[in-house]
Amino acid sequence: MRMVDLIQKKRDGKLHTKEEIQFIIEGYTNGDIPDYQMSAWSMAIFFKDMNDDERAWFTEAIVHSGDTIDLSAIEGIKVDKHSTGGVGDTTTLILAPLVSSIGVPVAKMSGRGLGHTGGTIDKLEAMKGFSVDISNDEFIRLVNTNKVAVMGQTDNLTPADKKLYGLRDVTGTVNSIPMIASSIMSKKLAAGADAIVLDVKTGAGAFMKELDESRELAEAMVKIGNNLERNTTAIISDMNQPLGFMIGNALEVKEAIDTLNGRGPADLTELCYTLGSHMAVLAGKANSTEEARELLQEAVKTGKALEQFKLFIRSQGGDDTIVDSPENLPTATKTIAVPSLSSGYISAIMADEIGTSAMLLGAGRATKDSVIDLAVGIELHKKIGDAVEEGEALVTLHVNDADYETVVEKVQAAYSISKEEIPSPQLIYDVIS
Amino acid sequence: MRMVDLIQKKRDGKLHTKEEIQFIIEGYTNGDIPDYQMSAWSMAIFFKDMNDDERAWFTEAIVHSGDTIDLSAIEGIKVDKHSTGGVGDTTTLILAPLVSSIGVPVAKMSGRGLGHTGGTIDKLEAMKGFSVDISNDEFIRLVNTNKVAVMGQTDNLTPADKKLYGLRDVTGTVNSIPMIASSIMSKKLAAGADAIVLDVKTGAGAFMKELDESRELAEAMVKIGNNLERNTTAIISDMNQPLGFMIGNALEVKEAIDTLNGRGPADLTELCYTLGSHMAVLAGKANSTEEARELLQEAVKTGKALEQFKLFIRSQGGDDTIVDSPENLPTATKTIAVPSLSSGYISAIMADEIGTSAMLLGAGRATKDSVIDLAVGIELHKKIGDAVEEGEALVTLHVNDADYETVVEKVQAAYSISKEEIPSPQLIYDVIS
Repeated sequence: MRMVDLIQKKRDGKLHTKEEIQFIIEGYTNGDIPDYQMSAWSMAIFFKDMNDDERAWFTEAIVHSGDTIDLSAIEGIKVDKHSTGGVGDTTTLILAPLVSSIGVPVAKMSGRGLGHTGGTIDKLEAMKGFSVDISNDEFIRLVNTNKVAVMGQTDNLTPADKKLYGLRDVTGTVNSIPMIASSIMSKKLAAGADAIVLDVKTGAGAFMKELDESRELAEAMVKIGNNLERNTTAIISDMNQPLGFMIGNALEVKEAIDTLNGRGPADLTELCYTLGSHMAVLAGKANSTEEARELLQEAVKTGKALEQFKLFIRSQGGDDTIVDSPENLPTATKTIAVPSLSSGYISAIMADEIGTSAMLLGAGRATKDSVIDLAVGIELHKKIGDAVEEGEALVTLHVNDADYETVVEKVQAAYSISKEEIPSPQLIYDVIS
Repeated sequence: MRMVDLIQKKRDGKLHTKEEIQFIIEGYTNGDIPDYQMSAWSMAIFFKDMNDDERAWFTEAIVHSGDTIDLSAIEGIKVDKHSTGGVGDTTTLILAPLVSSIGVPVAKMSGRGLGHTGGTIDKLEAMKGFSVDISNDEFIRLVNTNKVAVMGQTDNLTPADKKLYGLRDVTGTVNSIPMIASSIMSKKLAAGADAIVLDVKTGAGAFMKELDESRELAEAMVKIGNNLERNTTAIISDMNQPLGFMIGNALEVKEAIDTLNGRGPADLTELCYTLGSHMAVLAGKANSTEEARELLQEAVKTGKALEQFKLFIRSQGGDDTIVDSPENLPTATKTIAVPSLSSGYISAIMADEIGTSAMLLGAGRATKDSVIDLAVGIELHKKIGDAVEEGEALVTLHVNDADYETVVEKVQAAYSISKEEIPSPQLIYDVIS
């Protein structure tokens, strides 16, 4: 088999065999296939796509390019959740204790990542002593005992995806549905998931701005999952504004505690119940999402979910007293109210700009070497549809050392205010399974 | 400017500016733009093409990536001829003395190249003593004195094209009209041509098999030439069978002498008059192709063309006695007649297979290091439309050491024989200017 022939085949719109896909991924991973052939092939994929079989084989080949996690020693159906990423998305922090409190095993690998705020691990580390640096055996023991544990990502998970993503990033081939879908699904599969719930964001603050595109991506991932015998459900949810009120690491932990207490923001709470109920159904813990939702609401009402959060924190060395005393979380030295420049109704919030503002305050990493400030971030007071008076606070900035002047202006520019009343945006657009 | 943005721009079907095209070619030539970006961009070009402006800028940028030859010290309009390549194409060897005998200056750079037979230089070297290793000054002096000279290609002509062709060859992006057209035209322009006549082959033995494609390529090259202020004319000619009767180096020299004597094969003779008359018109030596053709036919009839061939050979150190005594050219030790396996009319000859057969006998280079045998090759006795009896010779192989058994079978398989009469194929399909 010669890569040049496979490039031409795809260029001419023909289908690859399973063996050809394996040849490509194995060759690229071990260096036999050079970057310049892989980038030409990726561009051919951009134009000619892969069919369902090719996408499944491609995902599978990427899974097998590195280590895979064996979760078979954990009882029950391990359901993983993945979000395509947005601003203020605290769902993992809430869902882990919430769904595990009703018996869904949560065995989560998580990363730090780049972005507006830290990854789930950074947020967890806002609780003093919390460590994700646990052995595989300890991880499995914890999930079997407590139904929940989070460990750091191993280095050699889906190396083909890492290498290919780096290449796509500099060759104009990031924006390809089969590539994006395979990349996400390969990581979930390599991490040992039996079933997967996907939260595909749509809107101005999401990677996919248009509902059509988001649906196409969701359908692609669901098909890959189902073709590889992992029950997969995708939710398409709104990212035309930040989710919840908090953007920042300790701030989001606080918001997670509020939500587990039944006092969280309406959108974040609703999204958690939606995602959580699909997770419970896939795990076989409920026969319908309605039944699952009742179980989850009951767990919040009785305090079981919050107790589960404490257990989870304690078991990994964290200070669980912050759940009852969130004031003990890292706190910024200054709070700055950002006033509205006019009166009316909030018609749009550029979520990206709010996220970048949080990063400028120190909440996220611009590069791998950036140091995160766990205490800083942004607390929203106004969301789309809310009425606002000139001079009233749109958000409060939680600031330590950062120069916040430009951030104030950035936030003000990110808000659009209309004279007419504006309805709140729809939260859930579709469920695909 | 960032290459990744330019890749995305082209991927999305947008047009490049002149500065962007220059940035790409300069960056690729000096190594700032890596192969993996150039191959992704080339694949985007394959799908999204370049418009006429982009093609002209691209060609110009390639011309300026290396040395350019200054022929301004040569009087008159320097017309170059280029063929897109076929089997048995001896036209350069004939046209150089033919058109220069009527006053068209021929200042030709030629290469050795890979293929079924050697390049023009190899063929010329079949005449003992002939050397293309002459200085630039000597080259210009010879053309001014004799109207004709051939020199070897300088190394640093269009390095961007060399590098890009190498990359396209392994990334499935060879077959792109704008890329092919720019590649050919850049070399002609860098070699100093004022005007260009293109012989675009079409048919089973050509790179472009379909007439439509060949016409598209011809039109693309003519537009590039004219946009860069070089009068350019393209002929579309048949390559459904080898041109003339001879395939091999000394064999083609012999056929060139025959043709300059007015005793050449009908198709080769006609193509030479067609190409030559367009060259003469572009050089301003005739007002119409009809007038030019008369001048050329006159030069053959009076022996002026043949005398010019002798002068050309002599001036570059070659043994011009072979013109009157072609039996002194290198001769193979064996001649093998290849008999027809049935009776009927020749309906098709796979030119590629005949060419490969000649190469197997040693007439051409498979790799850069192959050594050519100037004496060997194939002499056709039957062409499309000819009647043949079972056992009658289709071709004669001229063989030295090569194992010719497989070649005999290959040649027999390359001929198709029909019971019904078959017309000869059309030779000239179109003229584009």
